[in-house]
Amino acid sequence: MTATDEQRLARVALTWLAEPGTRSVHALVERIGPAATLDLLLAGDAPERTLRSAVAARTAAGDARRVAAEALARAERLGARLVTPEDDEWPAPVGELRRLVLPDAARRVDVETDPPLCFWVRGGWPLDETLARSVAVVGARAATPYGSHVATELGYGLADREWTVVSGGAFGIDSAAHRGALTAGGRTVAVLACGLDRPYPMGNAALFDRIAETGLLVSEWMPGAEPLRPRFLIRNRVIAAATRGTVLVEAAARSGATQTLNRALGLGRPAMVVPGPVTSAMSVGGHEVLRERPYARLVTGVAHVLEEVGRIGYDLAPPARAAERPRDRLDDEATQVLEALPRRRALDLESVAARAGVDLRTAMRKLSMLEELELVVRRSDGGYALTPPDAAERGRRPS
Amino acid sequence: MTATDEQRLARVALTWLAEPGTRSVHALVERIGPAATLDLLLAGDAPERTLRSAVAARTAAGDARRVAAEALARAERLGARLVTPEDDEWPAPVGELRRLVLPDAARRVDVETDPPLCFWVRGGWPLDETLARSVAVVGARAATPYGSHVATELGYGLADREWTVVSGGAFGIDSAAHRGALTAGGRTVAVLACGLDRPYPMGNAALFDRIAETGLLVSEWMPGAEPLRPRFLIRNRVIAAATRGTVLVEAAARSGATQTLNRALGLGRPAMVVPGPVTSAMSVGGHEVLRERPYARLVTGVAHVLEEVGRIGYDLAPPARAAERPRDRLDDEATQVLEALPRRRALDLESVAARAGVDLRTAMRKLSMLEELELVVRRSDGGYALTPPDAAERGRRPS
Repeated sequence: MTATDEQRLARVALTWLAEPGTRSVHALVERIGPAATLDLLLAGDAPERTLRSAVAARTAAGDARRVAAEALARAERLGARLVTPEDDEWPAPVGELRRLVLPDAARRVDVETDPPLCFWVRGGWPLDETLARSVAVVGARAATPYGSHVATELGYGLADREWTVVSGGAFGIDSAAHRGALTAGGRTVAVLACGLDRPYPMGNAALFDRIAETGLLVSEWMPGAEPLRPRFLIRNRVIAAATRGTVLVEAAARSGATQTLNRALGLGRPAMVVPGPVTSAMSVGGHEVLRERPYARLVTGVAHVLEEVGRIGYDLAPPARAAERPRDRLDDEATQVLEALPRRRALDLESVAARAGVDLRTAMRKLSMLEELELVVRRSDGGYALTPPDAAERGRRPS
Repeated sequence: MTATDEQRLARVALTWLAEPGTRSVHALVERIGPAATLDLLLAGDAPERTLRSAVAARTAAGDARRVAAEALARAERLGARLVTPEDDEWPAPVGELRRLVLPDAARRVDVETDPPLCFWVRGGWPLDETLARSVAVVGARAATPYGSHVATELGYGLADREWTVVSGGAFGIDSAAHRGALTAGGRTVAVLACGLDRPYPMGNAALFDRIAETGLLVSEWMPGAEPLRPRFLIRNRVIAAATRGTVLVEAAARSGATQTLNRALGLGRPAMVVPGPVTSAMSVGGHEVLRERPYARLVTGVAHVLEEVGRIGYDLAPPARAAERPRDRLDDEATQVLEALPRRRALDLESVAARAGVDLRTAMRKLSMLEELELVVRRSDGGYALTPPDAAERGRRPS
C-alpha cells in the first residue's frame, strides 16, 4: 500500500469511527494527517470524552481499517469513486465549513460542522467542476403541488442556463428539483445521507440512476452506510457549502430544509426563499426565515436566483451586492438638483436652481458633479438634461 | 357668517380650486390661514403657474365660495359633517404628511402629498378616536380568492382585537377587509376618492351604508365630487398617514396599492406585505416591495400585524423593536456557560465548567452574572438550572 493509499484509507476509516463534521477529528487531520489521526484515535487518545467513547464503541464492533478497505472494494464494484482533498476534483468551497459558526448552536449537529473528510461519487463528471456553478434547491418532503411545481420550474430554469442543481434525495421538493433539471437535459447532483448503494428512499431508486447517468450521486458515507436520521442534518451543511447559493422552496416551521438555509447564511452564501400562500403550512418555514433573517432574500423565480448567485459568477464578475448606483452616493443638494430635472426635457441653469431650491453657484457646482457621474448631460445650447436611462443605469447592473 | 365659518368655507373652496395635497396651497394655509389663501388664489396670485391656471380654469366654471356653501348644505342633507384641523376630532397623524418625501418622486401625485385641508365624514364615531388604533388593509381590485380570503381574515382579526380597519372602497381586497371587520362587529373606515354621496363603485353602495352605520365613510372631496382616476392615488396618502400601519394583501406590479405602502414607508410607519404564490400575478407587487424595500415587513396574519403596529400601541408601550433579550448582551463565555445548562435539570458548578469548556472561576463568575440577569437560578442543593422559560422571556415581550 502506498503512503497515499494509506492516507485515503485512513480518511474512510475516520468517517466510520466518527460522524463527518466532527470538529476535533477534522482539526487533527489538518494538523497531523489522516493516518496519524486514525492511529491516535484507535489508541484511545481522542481529545474528547464523547469521541473516545464513540471510537471505543465502533472498534468493539470491527476493525476500522478493514471496514474501510471493504468499503473501497464495494465502491469499485458499484462504479463509485472516493474523492479526497488531495484529488484534483475536490470541491474547495466545502473547506469554508471550517469557519462556519451557527448562532445559538447547541445541538451536536449545529456544532460539529467541519468540512467533509472525503466524498463518495457516482457519475462521470468531475466533482469540482460540476459544483463550481451550482445552486441548491431544498425543501419539504411533504411538498404541496404548488411547491413541487415551483421546484421543478427552478430545476428546469437553472439547468437550462447551465447551472448545476444540487439537492438531497428525498421525495417532494428534492425530487421535483432534480426532475426539472433532468427534463432540461442539465446536470443535477443528489447529495445523499447514506451509502451510494442504498438508495433512500427506495422509491427514488430509478431517479438516482438517472441522476448518476447525467449528473452525480454524492455522499460522505461509505457504501453500505445506513440513512440514520441525524445524517440528513449532518449532510445539509455540505449542500449549503458546495453550492453558490441555496433556495428554499417549501418547508414547515424549523425543518431540515430551513436548517440548510441557515447554514448558507452562516457561510455568507446567498440564502433565498420562495414565498407561498400564508394559508399553507408548507410555507411557514420559509416565511419565518424571511421574517427573522435579514440576509435571507425573497425570490420568485430563476431570474431572481441568478441575480443572487450570478454575483460571484462563473465569469468572475465582481461581487455586486455592495455595488451602488452613482446616485446613491449623492449629497442632499445634488439629489435635489438631480430631481429638479424633468424627465424629458432640458432646463437652463436658472430654472434648475429655482426648481431645486438652491442658489445658482450651488446648482452649477452640483451640475458639474452630476455631469462627471454621467447622470446629467449638458446640451450644446447650454441646457441641462438627465442622461437617458439606458446610459445612466449602465453602471448599476452586475455584468 | 362667523370667522370660523368663513375659514371652514374657505377650506372647502380650496379643495375645489386645487386637488388635496397641493403643497403650495397647504403651505399658504399654514402661513396665512384658509380665507386669506382663498382670497390670494382667487385674485390670481397663486405662487405657481400650474396652480394659477388650475384656479383660473375653476373660477371660470363657478364661484368657489358658492360651490363650497352648496357642498356644506348638501353634506348636511346627507348626514355628513365637515371636519377641519380646528375640530377636536381632527386626526393629528395626517399632519405628518407635511414631511413626507417620496424617493424618485416625479409624478405630481408623488410630489403633492401635503396633509388634507378638511375631511367629510359620515358615521357616528369621532374621526380621531376611530383612527387612533387603526390598520390599513389595501390591495388589488382584481383580487384572487386567496387574497380575498386573507383580507377577510385580517379584517376580522383586527376588528376582533378592537383595531379599526381602514381601506378604500374598491372591490377585491378593500371590500374583503371591510366585510371581515363588519363580520367581527368591529369598526371599519372607508376612505373614498369622491363625494360621500357618490358611492363608487356603485356595486358597493350597500357596503358603504353598512360601513357608515357601524364605522365611518371619509373623503377629502366634497359631496358631488367625481371619482376621477388621479384622486385614488391622491387619497392613498391619507390611508397611509391616518393609520398605524399598512398591510398590502395582493397587488399587481407597481399598482396603486403598492403606492400606498410606499407612502407608509415614507412616513416611517409599519409597511407590511402578505406574500402569496409566486405563480400568481396578484402577488408580484407585494413580492417586489419585499425585495426592494428593506423596511417592508413580511406578515402572514393578524398576529404579525399586531406585532408591528402594537409597538407604538394604544397602551403607549415603549417601542420594542430595539428591545433585546438579556441573553443578546452576553459575552462569549457567559453564552457558553448558559448553553452548557441542560433544558430540564440542574448541574453542579464543576459539571457546568466542564461542559462549557471554561475554568471553575470563570464558570462561577458567569453563573453569578446569569443569576443577576435572572437567566439562571441557583437551587437550594447548590445546583444551577435555567430559569423556567416563562420567567426568562418576560422582559422580551412588548407589553
